[in-house]
Amino acid sequence: MLTFIGMGLWDEKDISLKGLEEAKKADVVCVEFYTSRLMGTSLERIEELLGRKIRVLERSDLEENSGALIEEAKTKNVAILVPGDPMVATTHSALRLEAEQKGVKTRIIHGASISSAVCGLTGLHNYRFGKSATVSYPYGKPSATPVNVVHANWSVDAHTLLYLDLHPEPMLISQAVEILRSAGLEDCFAVGIARAGSDEPVVKCDTLEKLKNHEFGEGLHIMVILAETLHFMEYECLRAFASAPPELERLVK
Amino acid sequence: MLTFIGMGLWDEKDISLKGLEEAKKADVVCVEFYTSRLMGTSLERIEELLGRKIRVLERSDLEENSGALIEEAKTKNVAILVPGDPMVATTHSALRLEAEQKGVKTRIIHGASISSAVCGLTGLHNYRFGKSATVSYPYGKPSATPVNVVHANWSVDAHTLLYLDLHPEPMLISQAVEILRSAGLEDCFAVGIARAGSDEPVVKCDTLEKLKNHEFGEGLHIMVILAETLHFMEYECLRAFASAPPELERLVK
Repeated sequence: MLTFIGMGLWDEKDISLKGLEEAKKADVVCVEFYTSRLMGTSLERIEELLGRKIRVLERSDLEENSGALIEEAKTKNVAILVPGDPMVATTHSALRLEAEQKGVKTRIIHGASISSAVCGLTGLHNYRFGKSATVSYPYGKPSATPVNVVHANWSVDAHTLLYLDLHPEPMLISQAVEILRSAGLEDCFAVGIARAGSDEPVVKCDTLEKLKNHEFGEGLHIMVILAETLHFMEYECLRAFASAPPELERLVK
Repeated sequence: MLTFIGMGLWDEKDISLKGLEEAKKADVVCVEFYTSRLMGTSLERIEELLGRKIRVLERSDLEENSGALIEEAKTKNVAILVPGDPMVATTHSALRLEAEQKGVKTRIIHGASISSAVCGLTGLHNYRFGKSATVSYPYGKPSATPVNVVHANWSVDAHTLLYLDLHPEPMLISQAVEILRSAGLEDCFAVGIARAGSDEPVVKCDTLEKLKNHEFGEGLHIMVILAETLHFMEYECLRAFASAPPELERLVK
């Protein structure tokens, strides 16, 4: 049995009671910090909470060498701790598929994900989010994908959640703005979020050019590009929770 | 202080360690089952876990009479337990906005939400979900909104998550299909999900007409209308996790 356990957003206390219980009784417990990270804790603190040693998985353990993990799960209960909610990263669904195809049962214990947490942090309405995309570090020409996704979402009046690349190091909002602008994204209103799930998240709404110079502090960072219109309640929330400028009012339909 | 605590998807053990800790030390603990429900538990079991009495809030406490709750939060630490992740329901962001505008500090402790859990359950890629909508019970003519949202998402090749109405009682997938069809939605491929977060979720992919007669068992139910194309990994996952028919392969691009 292979059990994926979501650890939520920030520190070791964001795991659910059910997730903790399962991790304690598994034969083997692994953790991966490749698809995301928990900035408010450390491996040592998670091990202390569980009262046992945890094996750290690298990218290769999840991808090209995944067979070894699945082989182990044929005879043992293997739990994999994952930041956020498992399977929001496609790496996990590929691993789960391979396990099921090889006859290993899988189970998911869900955790909080940034993909829903952005609604609480910003006041933006969940039902108005369109497709999401990742802003990657450019090696040569920046990828057109995030800008294309923003344009597609604008065409149906939807917000865009943009994940920022984590490798080789977590991308900052200021870097993401530079990359998006150089990939052709016009200046527009967006929301930057730092340290979601912590006691002191920073949430700031402004134009891209102004967000570039805003002091968000340490990561992880994430961004939302706003739809072409806002519900008036979304506007009010962005004013109250994200210090949005009054000019944002012109988006209210 | 008003603290919103997400309870996750299914039962009392889906709350995070942080959420449990905060609920135990709050001056007043309330719960609301208006915006969603936890089908795998009861008020009594949640009270037992917390070791204290919990006040149940009605819709009116959250909406037209919200002033009373906010008044109380001026002098006490009030915690509100909420199924799923707080603020995915717009009711919560309105309450949070009113509190902040009246000078009451607010805090969110995130929980697992069906909006990310669907990715794990189905293998569908998170970044390919477009806007979501709710299928409501029709009083007269059915609302055109869900069908319009599906069409908008199809225009940008995105999946659509459809929440099903909870009032007066949780809608079933069979009822939702009838309503969507009578509102003009053509037959297409979709995924029905029952009891997300439980040990025995049912996940089934097929055409709407076939899903109507599938036995999903007890609620809550939720649906995804598939985009016009699928990534081949999404197809493979739907075959493995959702017993999708082989004809689905024609959507793979």
